[in-house]
Amino acid sequence: MTTQDNTGGLFGPLFHGSAIGAVFTDRAHLQGMLDFEAALARAEAKTGVIPAEAAGPIAAQCDAALYDLAALAEGATRGGNTAIPLVKALTAKVAARDKAAAGFVHWGATSQDAMDTGLVLQLRAAVALIEADLAKLSGNLATLAQKHRQTPMVGRTWLQHALPITFGLKVAGWLDAVERHRARIIELKPRLLVLQFGGAAGTLAALGDKGLVVAEALAADLKLALPATSWHGARDRVVEFGTVLALLTGTLGKMARDIALLMQTEAGEAYEPAGEGKGGSSTMPHKRNPVAAAAALAAATRVPHLAGSLLSGMVQEHERGLGGWHAEWQVLPELVQLSAGALAQMTEVTGGLEVQRDQMRANLDATNGLIMAEAVAMALGAKLGKQEAHHLIEAASKRAISEQRHLRDVLAEDKTVLLHLDRATLDKLFDPLGYTGVAAALIDRVLAARRT
Amino acid sequence: MTTQDNTGGLFGPLFHGSAIGAVFTDRAHLQGMLDFEAALARAEAKTGVIPAEAAGPIAAQCDAALYDLAALAEGATRGGNTAIPLVKALTAKVAARDKAAAGFVHWGATSQDAMDTGLVLQLRAAVALIEADLAKLSGNLATLAQKHRQTPMVGRTWLQHALPITFGLKVAGWLDAVERHRARIIELKPRLLVLQFGGAAGTLAALGDKGLVVAEALAADLKLALPATSWHGARDRVVEFGTVLALLTGTLGKMARDIALLMQTEAGEAYEPAGEGKGGSSTMPHKRNPVAAAAALAAATRVPHLAGSLLSGMVQEHERGLGGWHAEWQVLPELVQLSAGALAQMTEVTGGLEVQRDQMRANLDATNGLIMAEAVAMALGAKLGKQEAHHLIEAASKRAISEQRHLRDVLAEDKTVLLHLDRATLDKLFDPLGYTGVAAALIDRVLAARRT
Amino acid sequence: MTTQDNTGGLFGPLFHGSAIGAVFTDRAHLQGMLDFEAALARAEAKTGVIPAEAAGPIAAQCDAALYDLAALAEGATRGGNTAIPLVKALTAKVAARDKAAAGFVHWGATSQDAMDTGLVLQLRAAVALIEADLAKLSGNLATLAQKHRQTPMVGRTWLQHALPITFGLKVAGWLDAVERHRARIIELKPRLLVLQFGGAAGTLAALGDKGLVVAEALAADLKLALPATSWHGARDRVVEFGTVLALLTGTLGKMARDIALLMQTEAGEAYEPAGEGKGGSSTMPHKRNPVAAAAALAAATRVPHLAGSLLSGMVQEHERGLGGWHAEWQVLPELVQLSAGALAQMTEVTGGLEVQRDQMRANLDATNGLIMAEAVAMALGAKLGKQEAHHLIEAASKRAISEQRHLRDVLAEDKTVLLHLDRATLDKLFDPLGYTGVAAALIDRVLAARRT
Amino acid sequence: MTTQDNTGGLFGPLFHGSAIGAVFTDRAHLQGMLDFEAALARAEAKTGVIPAEAAGPIAAQCDAALYDLAALAEGATRGGNTAIPLVKALTAKVAARDKAAAGFVHWGATSQDAMDTGLVLQLRAAVALIEADLAKLSGNLATLAQKHRQTPMVGRTWLQHALPITFGLKVAGWLDAVERHRARIIELKPRLLVLQFGGAAGTLAALGDKGLVVAEALAADLKLALPATSWHGARDRVVEFGTVLALLTGTLGKMARDIALLMQTEAGEAYEPAGEGKGGSSTMPHKRNPVAAAAALAAATRVPHLAGSLLSGMVQEHERGLGGWHAEWQVLPELVQLSAGALAQMTEVTGGLEVQRDQMRANLDATNGLIMAEAVAMALGAKLGKQEAHHLIEAASKRAISEQRHLRDVLAEDKTVLLHLDRATLDKLFDPLGYTGVAAALIDRVLAARRT
Repeated sequence: MTTQDNTGGLFGPLFHGSAIGAVFTDRAHLQGMLDFEAALARAEAKTGVIPAEAAGPIAAQCDAALYDLAALAEGATRGGNTAIPLVKALTAKVAARDKAAAGFVHWGATSQDAMDTGLVLQLRAAVALIEADLAKLSGNLATLAQKHRQTPMVGRTWLQHALPITFGLKVAGWLDAVERHRARIIELKPRLLVLQFGGAAGTLAALGDKGLVVAEALAADLKLALPATSWHGARDRVVEFGTVLALLTGTLGKMARDIALLMQTEAGEAYEPAGEGKGGSSTMPHKRNPVAAAAALAAATRVPHLAGSLLSGMVQEHERGLGGWHAEWQVLPELVQLSAGALAQMTEVTGGLEVQRDQMRANLDATNGLIMAEAVAMALGAKLGKQEAHHLIEAASKRAISEQRHLRDVLAEDKTVLLHLDRATLDKLFDPLGYTGVAAALIDRVLAARRT
Repeated sequence: MTTQDNTGGLFGPLFHGSAIGAVFTDRAHLQGMLDFEAALARAEAKTGVIPAEAAGPIAAQCDAALYDLAALAEGATRGGNTAIPLVKALTAKVAARDKAAAGFVHWGATSQDAMDTGLVLQLRAAVALIEADLAKLSGNLATLAQKHRQTPMVGRTWLQHALPITFGLKVAGWLDAVERHRARIIELKPRLLVLQFGGAAGTLAALGDKGLVVAEALAADLKLALPATSWHGARDRVVEFGTVLALLTGTLGKMARDIALLMQTEAGEAYEPAGEGKGGSSTMPHKRNPVAAAAALAAATRVPHLAGSLLSGMVQEHERGLGGWHAEWQVLPELVQLSAGALAQMTEVTGGLEVQRDQMRANLDATNGLIMAEAVAMALGAKLGKQEAHHLIEAASKRAISEQRHLRDVLAEDKTVLLHLDRATLDKLFDPLGYTGVAAALIDRVLAARRT
Repeated sequence: MTTQDNTGGLFGPLFHGSAIGAVFTDRAHLQGMLDFEAALARAEAKTGVIPAEAAGPIAAQCDAALYDLAALAEGATRGGNTAIPLVKALTAKVAARDKAAAGFVHWGATSQDAMDTGLVLQLRAAVALIEADLAKLSGNLATLAQKHRQTPMVGRTWLQHALPITFGLKVAGWLDAVERHRARIIELKPRLLVLQFGGAAGTLAALGDKGLVVAEALAADLKLALPATSWHGARDRVVEFGTVLALLTGTLGKMARDIALLMQTEAGEAYEPAGEGKGGSSTMPHKRNPVAAAAALAAATRVPHLAGSLLSGMVQEHERGLGGWHAEWQVLPELVQLSAGALAQMTEVTGGLEVQRDQMRANLDATNGLIMAEAVAMALGAKLGKQEAHHLIEAASKRAISEQRHLRDVLAEDKTVLLHLDRATLDKLFDPLGYTGVAAALIDRVLAARRT
Repeated sequence: MTTQDNTGGLFGPLFHGSAIGAVFTDRAHLQGMLDFEAALARAEAKTGVIPAEAAGPIAAQCDAALYDLAALAEGATRGGNTAIPLVKALTAKVAARDKAAAGFVHWGATSQDAMDTGLVLQLRAAVALIEADLAKLSGNLATLAQKHRQTPMVGRTWLQHALPITFGLKVAGWLDAVERHRARIIELKPRLLVLQFGGAAGTLAALGDKGLVVAEALAADLKLALPATSWHGARDRVVEFGTVLALLTGTLGKMARDIALLMQTEAGEAYEPAGEGKGGSSTMPHKRNPVAAAAALAAATRVPHLAGSLLSGMVQEHERGLGGWHAEWQVLPELVQLSAGALAQMTEVTGGLEVQRDQMRANLDATNGLIMAEAVAMALGAKLGKQEAHHLIEAASKRAISEQRHLRDVLAEDKTVLLHLDRATLDKLFDPLGYTGVAAALIDRVLAARRT
């Protein structure tokens, strides 16, 4: 027996982070099913469907550490899923100790009942981890937004300098999206965290008229909600979780790309926190590789397709499908882990982001004041009329570009300008923070709406 | 000028259905933006940002029918979006009548403000159509589930006969999922139906300290909610809508595949409603092509990838991205139309589904009673013990298969069986409806939970 | 140390098959890189770039079994890939034995040189396995096509009975596609099986003017082709392989779905080979679950999205990208293994497919002769004229349906028919094999074109 | 009648470019099918299957301009495809002029024969346009690579400065990939440009023993190859084309992102050619929006998912599938047009790219010589030993960073350095072009391998 059953392998820590990996090991998959089997036995004993004394011996064998992974993997090739060989192995183990009890293992259930409920139990653990990390990320972002409420920087569109913004506003945009993801997860939980229990064709026929009574007891035992009916072929519950995590990963990828772009040698406005040996290069001392961003961007590249894969798999035939369900087994855990990994990476990054205020300020000046052209045009327009001001600034901008001078200096020579704006006013107009509109108010709105 | 601007083309009616097409024509796209521009002028006039008399002349030109599609399409190749040439054309039209007013067109806004808000207005119309169709579909399914509460049929897993179910239960499974989709749409609307308004870099700087006042007036004019901040680079609001429709389409595809499989020549259990010339073949008189199912399945094949496309596009750079946003423009309308089209198809199908009770009953008998083996084993188990009953039935089943006789007849010759079950009881055990467990109760649960 | 490093885990045998798994373990990934490092040292020693005596001590440590997976996985979180910690660990191991040699580990190379070349070495092994299985599959299909050259069965379109075909023709359609995939793999190999070697920025600058000489020696040592230039940011070579395997998987999925549909309880025309306990159910004796088809269909559901993931990742920045390349690392191995697994499953299935000729014949009769309506109409048309024959057959078909009689019997009562066709001729017209056109010739064409 | 039937609509020119649009209009779709129908009539007349005099009247009506798009679109909702209503309309038009000939319209063919062959005819035109543009792009890149063989610039990895390269080498990397795409297209053409002709079930049964003779004549008439058998359910031929274009689009997206990054305000190393009003902003005079790159990146975002959609659709049932084939109809044309559009955009960009040699040079100096640290370390290592040189440079680099001085100046103060390198040698070591290794040779290799 080995404990090295994490499917993440060599790339696990980088892409999945650490905590979530334990939720999706092969053994955790088995344990989810075994938790179902133990609870089923207890529920059926409690409702008089199976003998009271059968539950204990069954539950006693419901420990994933007792099972041989390789043998179960081999058995899955014959049965077509992992529940069939597991139930067989469980039955054998129970029988070795209590023959009578063995006859009541998995009573009235079908493979998919065990696999789906086991999955839901794993997802419940994953949701808890993700919600905790989301709260931490949200806190990090709130702190940054607050702290940089008045830190001016270049706003960029089309990868070009556009107008000044504040770093706080940029972060508030990230935060606002993160808060929506938190709301989505809260909304989907009642749909996701439910029991799967229908028996071979969804009717619980093998339990006679006791089907619903057992189902209620089973749901209560596992602390899951009891759905109106089973959902063997209706996969929207779990697929929705995949799509919501994909939305989250999209936001994380956007944050990662923003940060990686800010870390560019030419920009230098923010850096991932430096860790020992993290992202550095011994022969290229100027390098500061955005390792966390790379991991998050890899997730943002992959997760949309994993979500698509789950959606494609929804077309499942009749009471239990062929291929579509099977496609979920590896895809959903991978998607959850990649999302959680990207979340962990960006949570760590935002917790220690190195913000370079001076470089942000310097980059605002990189276009010799052209980034403030609109600000000056607006101010001048109030005096000269929009049209005339616009033409004047346009001409001055061209001169500034061709003569490689600062726009302020060019304007300071213009008689029409001087008629309306003295040098001090002109200087003030070139203060980027003065042309950030309602940025501060928007940050406050986002912070006020934040779930704390 | 032409009204033939529907992007659906030759395949539009088949894949998109009819009503939704009007929401996503090229002209409707323009009208969405023009509605934004008209409302912006009114809001800015009302708040004193532009002269009161400018709003009227601007709004007067905000009619999509006035614009030349080909010229705008050409202009989009230079500006990189459709708002830039539209605003230019709008300004020119206003200027031709009122030069002063023309100076206030699009005041303080950016292209994406117009495009995103215009899109939201289109999506609002789409949501209304989809919710109406979903309600109709839900009603159709409730009627079918109720009507076929006691219609036994074969339950199938792995495309193989498994155990009896009722047709009502199958439909209830579809309905339960449809109800979840309705809930999801209700939940996402507050996130989706919001104004986009931030100006060139999201700060509304061009409006000085009036940014939020204008934003409030504008949102009120358009009857949209005002978000905490603009979302130019945070695309989860619209992408979420795409993913929820993709979940819906997955369910519709599942229904379509189920129906197409039931329509198979060998199964013959249900048929799409016959329309004049629909799905028939003049040279192959036995054919009954599932045309509506094909359209829905095509949607279910395509939509997961369209949703994936939107998710991939979320990684947008800084204050406004490069490529990711552009990727949304055609994908989201296509996704919405395909989903709505599949919904329309399945709504029509379920409204007139031809259910063949007799054939359902006949197919239950196709395996010579083997489908009831478990039922008999359970009954016999209560008398003989589970193990012994199981062995007895297994042996009898083998004989039934090899001798091609009905399992009931084989069992009726077995002395052990006769000791415990008389012929009448045996016959009753072979009544499929008798082994449908809590199917009826599950149907009731689903119907009770339905939003009406 | 553990040998349980296969990433497939519990689902590996079912979805990946057995042989390919060994190519993509974590250790095999390391070994690919270490093979590169050993060959690099040899090539550089041979070309005088490093001391001749350095190569041996380096190569001696290039055995994946020597390395600690967990430590390397942890190291990857700092360096951002697995090559950085591996090269460090290799250097340390060499240094422990030969300090001087340690200075020449990885000389002039970059992480991606090791990772990409290592990957190519793994893919070379995978290609060999896949080509061998494709040849076997092709052989199985050729045998089936030949054997069932004259086995009539129902041809189905839209999941409806259409006209008779032969089973040989159906198989020939599969075979024809398989042969195209074989050709594609042959064509892509020269693009895929190439060295990656460019150093930190693709110029091999650290090797002075010896860059190309070393590259040639290195390629020769590894028996890989030397490409015109390095391809760190140009990923089409490896992504192409993914897309070609995705095309193959599409064909395998089509075969799997065909077979699963033929296995339906109502159709019963063909079955996957029965293995001990494979696909059966103890309580549902009539079941014959298509387990291999389910695995292949799961692959066909997932692989298109994995291919899409690779394609999305191609947009990599500058000389070495951020996120896109990282996205390949787990996706390509997963894609290759799923494709190979589906291939193994369908190879096994076609090698032992149970074809039910009698049931195929019986199903041809299921529509009371209507499937032959076109055949009779054509024959009668030659005598009566197309139009009149068509009307006559249409009317007779309607009567056959409403009276539930065989079309032949209805026609045998029709005076116009009897005028032109005697009973024997009529009977012959209802022989399905007689209306399979050029099916046999098409089979021969496919067999003749087959690569043997 | 209208000629406004291009499906590209408002976004067509931006995303699809101009030439390809004409190949995929609704009318072109009809014309493809009508070309098939006309050729079929001629081939059947020639081979004596239909009366010689029937071919002319049929061919005379095979002009797409004669048909009512709206009526056909409506008809498609009943028949489930566009061929059924088109053949009906064609038959009616022929009948109005020649009743006898009308009886031989579409003789022995099935809808999919017309649709698939029509599609292949469209794709043939598309391939020709794409190959021509690829040749032009290849030429542009060859010119750039040659011209900038000695233009040093920063090589960037992880979006960080790494080592010097030449711009010629960067372009050669693009070119090398483009050449592979050209080879792929040449290889796939024999698989793609083939006739589809099988009749209702692929046997050509309606043509008796004349099936292959007609097929040969038909293929010859259309100048298409005759495949071994029909491929109604085997979609790899057309899907392969989609995947190869997706590979191409990946390369184009990579080029677009590289260029957009080089166009960043902070980088300023290259610009898309300036067109009148293209990418500029009147209020933000410093902006230079990469419009062409945005279009190509949008394609690179969408096309992977469209390719995935085609791959997902390959799982088609039996002789003709349900949904999978239908999913191709809009996806493949969209994919081809997006790829061709991105190709046209990047061809235009590379034909007029504004390369800023001076800024490239300036950016090499942005890190105060640190980018040359490895070069100096290598040179010094030859004298001091690798280890010692490395430590020395590392220390000097740290000082250069902390004191914000040029590394060369720091080193020029170091006695150990001065012992081995005089100031002139030191200066030379800081010439970036001197540390571009075999870049020039690699460019030559790529140019030599280019298909001209």
